[in-house]
Amino acid sequence: MLDEITRQAWLYGRGFLLNGKVADYIPELSKANPVYLGICIKTLSGEMIEFGDVSHRFTIQSISKVITLAMALEKLGYDEVFSHVMMEPSGDAFNSILKLDTASNRPYNPMINAGAIDVIGLLAPVCDFDELLAFSRKLCQDDEITMDFDVYHSESVTGDRNRAIGYLLKSKGVLHGDVLSAVDLYIRMCSLSVTARSLAGLGQVLAAGGVIPDTEERVLSANTVRVVQTLMFTCGMYDRSGEMAVRVGIPSKSGVGGGIMSCVTDRMGIGIYGPSLDEKGNSIGGANMLEYLSKELRLHVFDAGKGIW
Amino acid sequence: MLDEITRQAWLYGRGFLLNGKVADYIPELSKANPVYLGICIKTLSGEMIEFGDVSHRFTIQSISKVITLAMALEKLGYDEVFSHVMMEPSGDAFNSILKLDTASNRPYNPMINAGAIDVIGLLAPVCDFDELLAFSRKLCQDDEITMDFDVYHSESVTGDRNRAIGYLLKSKGVLHGDVLSAVDLYIRMCSLSVTARSLAGLGQVLAAGGVIPDTEERVLSANTVRVVQTLMFTCGMYDRSGEMAVRVGIPSKSGVGGGIMSCVTDRMGIGIYGPSLDEKGNSIGGANMLEYLSKELRLHVFDAGKGIW
Amino acid sequence: MLDEITRQAWLYGRGFLLNGKVADYIPELSKANPVYLGICIKTLSGEMIEFGDVSHRFTIQSISKVITLAMALEKLGYDEVFSHVMMEPSGDAFNSILKLDTASNRPYNPMINAGAIDVIGLLAPVCDFDELLAFSRKLCQDDEITMDFDVYHSESVTGDRNRAIGYLLKSKGVLHGDVLSAVDLYIRMCSLSVTARSLAGLGQVLAAGGVIPDTEERVLSANTVRVVQTLMFTCGMYDRSGEMAVRVGIPSKSGVGGGIMSCVTDRMGIGIYGPSLDEKGNSIGGANMLEYLSKELRLHVFDAGKGIW
Amino acid sequence: MLDEITRQAWLYGRGFLLNGKVADYIPELSKANPVYLGICIKTLSGEMIEFGDVSHRFTIQSISKVITLAMALEKLGYDEVFSHVMMEPSGDAFNSILKLDTASNRPYNPMINAGAIDVIGLLAPVCDFDELLAFSRKLCQDDEITMDFDVYHSESVTGDRNRAIGYLLKSKGVLHGDVLSAVDLYIRMCSLSVTARSLAGLGQVLAAGGVIPDTEERVLSANTVRVVQTLMFTCGMYDRSGEMAVRVGIPSKSGVGGGIMSCVTDRMGIGIYGPSLDEKGNSIGGANMLEYLSKELRLHVFDAGKGIW
Repeated sequence: MLDEITRQAWLYGRGFLLNGKVADYIPELSKANPVYLGICIKTLSGEMIEFGDVSHRFTIQSISKVITLAMALEKLGYDEVFSHVMMEPSGDAFNSILKLDTASNRPYNPMINAGAIDVIGLLAPVCDFDELLAFSRKLCQDDEITMDFDVYHSESVTGDRNRAIGYLLKSKGVLHGDVLSAVDLYIRMCSLSVTARSLAGLGQVLAAGGVIPDTEERVLSANTVRVVQTLMFTCGMYDRSGEMAVRVGIPSKSGVGGGIMSCVTDRMGIGIYGPSLDEKGNSIGGANMLEYLSKELRLHVFDAGKGIW
Repeated sequence: MLDEITRQAWLYGRGFLLNGKVADYIPELSKANPVYLGICIKTLSGEMIEFGDVSHRFTIQSISKVITLAMALEKLGYDEVFSHVMMEPSGDAFNSILKLDTASNRPYNPMINAGAIDVIGLLAPVCDFDELLAFSRKLCQDDEITMDFDVYHSESVTGDRNRAIGYLLKSKGVLHGDVLSAVDLYIRMCSLSVTARSLAGLGQVLAAGGVIPDTEERVLSANTVRVVQTLMFTCGMYDRSGEMAVRVGIPSKSGVGGGIMSCVTDRMGIGIYGPSLDEKGNSIGGANMLEYLSKELRLHVFDAGKGIW
Repeated sequence: MLDEITRQAWLYGRGFLLNGKVADYIPELSKANPVYLGICIKTLSGEMIEFGDVSHRFTIQSISKVITLAMALEKLGYDEVFSHVMMEPSGDAFNSILKLDTASNRPYNPMINAGAIDVIGLLAPVCDFDELLAFSRKLCQDDEITMDFDVYHSESVTGDRNRAIGYLLKSKGVLHGDVLSAVDLYIRMCSLSVTARSLAGLGQVLAAGGVIPDTEERVLSANTVRVVQTLMFTCGMYDRSGEMAVRVGIPSKSGVGGGIMSCVTDRMGIGIYGPSLDEKGNSIGGANMLEYLSKELRLHVFDAGKGIW
Repeated sequence: MLDEITRQAWLYGRGFLLNGKVADYIPELSKANPVYLGICIKTLSGEMIEFGDVSHRFTIQSISKVITLAMALEKLGYDEVFSHVMMEPSGDAFNSILKLDTASNRPYNPMINAGAIDVIGLLAPVCDFDELLAFSRKLCQDDEITMDFDVYHSESVTGDRNRAIGYLLKSKGVLHGDVLSAVDLYIRMCSLSVTARSLAGLGQVLAAGGVIPDTEERVLSANTVRVVQTLMFTCGMYDRSGEMAVRVGIPSKSGVGGGIMSCVTDRMGIGIYGPSLDEKGNSIGGANMLEYLSKELRLHVFDAGKGIW
């Protein structure tokens, strides 16, 4: 049944692809094919269901913010991380510096660029790119993740706004160390090359509370998972996070490369690829697939009547 | 056991009362006694547990935004309501007009003043105060709710910022009809006099998906409940909503009168009274009681391992 | 010679009329004919030069801000007025409330709506519309100025943003008394019906330091004139004030009715009518006539070599 | 008489020194002695009047913005310069990035940091530091101006906000070339070491319309001088520019090093040193000396009755 509903969701999502468009603010991203759409579901009981372009590699982009936040929480702890970044939805665009300059010295949350660069700056002294790459492979259960050099290069050339954010953070005393190195590490993490299947793997680990179901290996603490999932829920879908929370009700994080990674606690991880984006930067086919699945499978976190406690 | 944990939570919450202070921007509110603290839990199975000042009457203030939103969704439907107001956390103060004037013509969400006044303006032609009062009594399962005239008068005198918001909404074409009447109705709803027990009743109905457990009467549709709970989760605790979502993980709405109303899907409603407020305007004892309960009872919506699906 | 240069300026200004458009945010204003253009110069030595549509009546709009500010300075004094409003250019649109709500409780200056409504609110207890009308007639040396009822009515119907500003000012404690009355008085003053000739009269009085040259009657103190001229120079041409100061260098105040009133200290007043507006709300023909005149007659206040001190 | 009035002005200005404080955001600047106060007046007829600390060297800081703007206008022309930067007062702090990020891609004017860095970026390909230093010496008629290495070093270490501004400008396509080099050149120019006498020399050249009175050498075109003076008048005294325009009425530019440079067209240049600053960053003794001089000598640009045209 899950198989059939997933197929229906995929067909439903395809109907929206022409309403969106591929990201073009980074030249390399604009080469993506807007009709690609893939979904992979990995349940906690070990089932895997896939439709469409699930093995196509694309860059993880903002979904890497989940990984670096998880790493920072594991390495540095909740208190240290959240003395440098807040946990509030900002209501502004992902690359906004407005609030950072007027409302608070700390970035509003780790899901916007300012917050993610801040977290990277915290991690830099204790963790290099190789360790972050290994951690990403482990969480995604995908050993073939590498850095896409073309996208990395393209984003480096156009990364001046992120450098501006970095220097602003430094001027406010929340980012220490070398700004250009921190931004470089941020861009490297955005350039990791994943598939819908990799993202389903990451979602599955979060849904399982930090354990890889197949091996029962714990890779994240329950605390880290709770924090990460909540921030995905409140801030994970750019300026549509609030609407997605209402309509879908599943913690999700999207990236402008076309990926969405979702996790349904105690139930499943979902990985999506669909580079045709809505005007907020979310995969338009993906967001609609999620809404379809949530309705049909009653995955909304605030649906009543799902079980006895 | 629930009884004992609630008692512990109450003792824990009391320890924070001196760190907060009573609201003073409305003269009448400043008369509240900051050492009052009460909690009432109503489970879906019909249990009721109470500690402290649970029968003290105070004004509902912003928690009325939940009631008017629910009424609007029931009377006008999702599409009509959300063509006038958005669903995004704003990251700004509850009475901010910044984004309304610069980022969007529609208020960001129905939990900030601009959004609530907008919703009231929609309701005004189809629903008067008496009907809203009757609806409030029904949802709270409390027939003794009345309007506190002293608070109403005090807020009317100091309500110029809300009138400014109303006229701004009208100038943008999202609020129709008479501005001063809409703001007056908004202030009346804020002045409803409730108890912690009333709020537990409201939370219980939401936790039960819109049904009053005792009578099995459906008073809200499942859709309305899902929308309302999600908006409470993402925007219900003023500028601390994001942090409360992370640390507590229970849909909650607070008011500057000292109330908090929370709902744990399929499990319980919680009503709190504690007029000593944190600097964001939430009951400081209440917020800490919720955090204690969430940890001890594993109520966080993203806690894994709670059940079989 | 002044006659010929003025004629050339008028011809030059006409060339720009099709690049602008008539104000449309108030329905009544949209009826103006965009090809109208008139200029009247009244020198301090008593010469009067006119071209084009100088006796056509139109509404004074924002130029009335100069008159109410002058009245407030005369009646209440510099210290009282500027304890309620600042003197800084705001860099924002004339009807902005951004800075009022975020940067300062006092409006930035009396040439933006918030500042003008604030000043009107100060005047209201000591001065009614009839007195302001008489004062306007005196300053403009035009006894036929009346209120245009159609425009007044049209602006009243669409004046909700100004009411929002009024209530915001009241909520901040800078505006006292009845908000709706103050805004009504503000709209009345905007609806005064003048001609290019009236505005030249007003400009002449300012250029003469507060004296009506013909009668040698002092109608404004030298202090009031200095303050008013400086604010016209720094803030008088909406968001183009800075550029006009650089390119023209003459204190000027424009209105969306198509008027511009300018004053060249010790030399002349200039009145202009041209309802085709640039995108900032200034008469496009008028602004270009002023630039032409400034260059040809060396009227820029910072032109060196004009005289021995 | 000028001598005696200047002495009175100096005594008057001294009375305010304890109301201000020395700049402390750059460590090296905090070493200045707040009781220093000096004024130098150089008239166009060749008179020079001095009181107090007129030969003490201090860093020029923001007054260098006048020099780099003048150089850019001379080298690149009005059209090229103002296609990259606007001419409007911003109403925001000198180091604000708010409007740059929300209201316009071009900085509001060349007197705020963003505008000055933008202008430096334009100049960099056609003009190196040595040429700018030589130009500064020429304009100030002071061959002993050098770069203060300690201040330069101190500002480099704390210059991250300026680097943020530079990268933001680059991300918007208004600044080309290497950001860190442009910011470095900007900091070098801020670190030029001048005296009150140097600034009087610069003011004298501007007052004379671009000619050095002693040698009759033309060093700036009349156009450049007009533009520069107007921008000093509307934007030269940080967030107090509007008030200074009203109360003093003389084009002036201040720097946080304690300098003010003023020019009275056709009459005199004024150079001031007084490192005790008001809360907006202007020399508090200097601003009050200027107000005294303006009143006594009738220097306000909008004072009527000064002469026959």
